Amino acid sequence: MIRVLGIDPGLVNLGWGVIEADRGRMRHVANGSCHSGKGDLADRLLQLHRQLSGIIDSYRPQTAAVEQTFVNKDAVATLKLGQARAIALLVPAQFGLTVGEYAPNKVKKCVVGVGHADKRQVQHMVRMQLPGADLTGPDAADALAVAICHAFYMDATAVAPKVRA
Amino acid sequence: MIRVLGIDPGLVNLGWGVIEADRGRMRHVANGSCHSGKGDLADRLLQLHRQLSGIIDSYRPQTAAVEQTFVNKDAVATLKLGQARAIALLVPAQFGLTVGEYAPNKVKKCVVGVGHADKRQVQHMVRMQLPGADLTGPDAADALAVAICHAFYMDATAVAPKVRA
Repeated sequence: MIRVLGIDPGLVNLGWGVIEADRGRMRHVANGSCHSGKGDLADRLLQLHRQLSGIIDSYRPQTAAVEQTFVNKDAVATLKLGQARAIALLVPAQFGLTVGEYAPNKVKKCVVGVGHADKRQVQHMVRMQLPGADLTGPDAADALAVAICHAFYMDATAVAPKVRA
Repeated sequence: MIRVLGIDPGLVNLGWGVIEADRGRMRHVANGSCHSGKGDLADRLLQLHRQLSGIIDSYRPQTAAVEQTFVNKDAVATLKLGQARAIALLVPAQFGLTVGEYAPNKVKKCVVGVGHADKRQVQHMVRMQLPGADLTGPDAADALAVAICHAFYMDATAVAPKVRA
């Protein structure tokens, strides 16, 4: 049995979801969102860092996964997303967890069966695969989808948490 | 007298420079670069986080400033830069420092006198303004330029380090 943290990065709302996976069987543990309010960027990143550290401290996942997001249209939005993704990648690494990265299409294909599924389909399939999960929002649902995808693709090396000296 | 940390963010090389400023007079303290080698992105961000934390721990600056960089051409490069910038903003905030942000043109105008100065001009003027500074590289020189700019623009509110509970 392994406990998996999925993260859907964002500067305003950073979704997270924790599941337990045991050879194909999955169980929902918890989900929610970290938020950063007004303030300068350094302050907002600090808020996300503290909240996400608190989540890992509370739920003690053994591995983590983050959605790989590409934004092409808007450089300012891409820079912001990069900053939020850095927190999503850094915090699990600071706790010694391996951090998988999955493209959105791969997550959708894994959870829904097709790479071009919409948000409602993802939420529906997350609810089907994790009975009893009370989804706190679309970011949290996406985070659970990343966790499901990671549990599915994890191999022996990912299962054994890397020790960071 | 106030000790200022300037940071020039980058994922491969993250330049840093520490100066002391006292009512218009400036003194070089130290400069260098943090590096992230091969490995997954989470690992590289963790390397930068640890090195930059070590710098702040060693030199105990009272305020920090980061160059505001905009990349429009390449979304992948922008995303990477955003991730490195997040570390540059987060680490000083974790130490309770205020973090100023300055556009590259503002830094150049402040240090060289014109907003379109090239790298060599910046390095020349940094050496002029900080006699005895042994510049370890172009990233470190840019970081010292940001520190000089911050020392110049700092007002009373920036001088008093904000306490982050």
